[in-house]
Amino acid sequence: MKALFRRVALVGVGLIGGSLGMALRSGHLAVSVVGVGRDRERLEKAQSLGAIDDIAGDLAPGVADADLVVLATPVRQILADVERLGPHLARGAIVTDVGSTKTEIARRADATLAPGVFVAGHPMAGSERSGVEAANPDLFRQAVWALTPTAATNADALDRVETMAKAVGARVLVLDPDAHDRAVAVTSHLPHVLAYALSSLAGREAERTAHLYDLAAGSFASATRVAQSPPELWRDVALTNRTALAQSVRSFCAELEAVVSALEAGDDDVVLARFRDGHDAKQRASA
Amino acid sequence: MKALFRRVALVGVGLIGGSLGMALRSGHLAVSVVGVGRDRERLEKAQSLGAIDDIAGDLAPGVADADLVVLATPVRQILADVERLGPHLARGAIVTDVGSTKTEIARRADATLAPGVFVAGHPMAGSERSGVEAANPDLFRQAVWALTPTAATNADALDRVETMAKAVGARVLVLDPDAHDRAVAVTSHLPHVLAYALSSLAGREAERTAHLYDLAAGSFASATRVAQSPPELWRDVALTNRTALAQSVRSFCAELEAVVSALEAGDDDVVLARFRDGHDAKQRASA
Repeated sequence: MKALFRRVALVGVGLIGGSLGMALRSGHLAVSVVGVGRDRERLEKAQSLGAIDDIAGDLAPGVADADLVVLATPVRQILADVERLGPHLARGAIVTDVGSTKTEIARRADATLAPGVFVAGHPMAGSERSGVEAANPDLFRQAVWALTPTAATNADALDRVETMAKAVGARVLVLDPDAHDRAVAVTSHLPHVLAYALSSLAGREAERTAHLYDLAAGSFASATRVAQSPPELWRDVALTNRTALAQSVRSFCAELEAVVSALEAGDDDVVLARFRDGHDAKQRASA
Repeated sequence: MKALFRRVALVGVGLIGGSLGMALRSGHLAVSVVGVGRDRERLEKAQSLGAIDDIAGDLAPGVADADLVVLATPVRQILADVERLGPHLARGAIVTDVGSTKTEIARRADATLAPGVFVAGHPMAGSERSGVEAANPDLFRQAVWALTPTAATNADALDRVETMAKAVGARVLVLDPDAHDRAVAVTSHLPHVLAYALSSLAGREAERTAHLYDLAAGSFASATRVAQSPPELWRDVALTNRTALAQSVRSFCAELEAVVSALEAGDDDVVLARFRDGHDAKQRASA
């Protein structure tokens, strides 16, 4: 395949940035990939793992000759970089990001970058593991890569980012930033909140209940798996999607309240109806 | 290995009963295994899969010549069978069960069976799959098998059930029925309640939000995996452990309330502290 970009600048080379670098390089989709970041040791690690060709210690030199800039740091660093990126971009450069929330990032880009250059994106390909050590070039295969253009987004820029996402194996879904954020509040952010909360609760119970973890089976392991994810990263996600996430958490609590009231009343039928509703929705979702 | 039992009666031959039958037969731990149940087709399936040697349509003939009876139905059927089992047992027979809650079962057995014959148990080896089709003889390898004797339990009977559990590969944990039920409320029953509730909520959201499931990544799949479990089975579990479970659900809601209040207030530090607490507890639990 002919290279899609001459030089791609990856700002942040963790799990997602590192995997993208590997996919771009192994697929010959970019002539060269430069990793941009403060932590030289991490960038050297990324380089040795084949995620990037070159290293840049700061944004200005890092993005200067890039025709695609990918912001792949935690969300609040993306917001900060969007604000200071503009003056350093090459003419015709496109900027995209891989942040888990889109409304605030798209709004900030519309307010601070030249019209059209920014294409907000979110590959749905995480892991409870983090860092470039966990990266792999096949991370995006069959994954959904959401792109959330605004009225300001240039159609050609959108098209080029879409082509790149498909070239690394992803299925592209174009939708509104708000619709994206409302959906992932339920399907991604809430599950992380629940995993951290269950892990916290069990941790406290384990201090006063002997053998607690000996009595944990597969359901506990699944329910707390993503509590291994970096807390700082998810704090950023939660706070940049706080309206939708708070609403999801409150809806979830109302669902639990219905179950616990029925439990306390010994109301078999309601308990069964709630469990069956969840069971049936899972069947439909998996179908 | 010399057979531990002459004839084992498995009352209920689903995932757990079926797997136990396979493990007992393949390990030559019982001279013969009889499956007891109403549904002849399911028992024939179990027989064809090698889980049982013989079939009995009712409790009385099924347990008549057994020296070990294993109650492996959903919890409320176990409770019903405990009540009507006594008159049909052979002299010297031992009865155990594999139900997910122990206090109510142990209490019922103490009240209705001859002193000493009952050893309440719970192998921590489930799956979101159910039925003998999902059974396998290695299901109990490395799994914890909880045994929860009461003051009435005969030491020799406990010893023989413990030997059986170890012979099929499990690690035996002997503890008090109440302690067991408090622990599994957090480590097993609450995770099931959360999975059903999240699946329900997402099902409702999917009706009004396009692409909801397209935007579900691994965290949603993990968090809802056990919503595939049979709702009737978990209703029984929930209602026979309702005091401990209701308390766990309420504690969990309080945990969520702390997070959502901090989210709504935009209080970064509290959100991070809650997530970090869950993260650190998970690290300790996995260590």
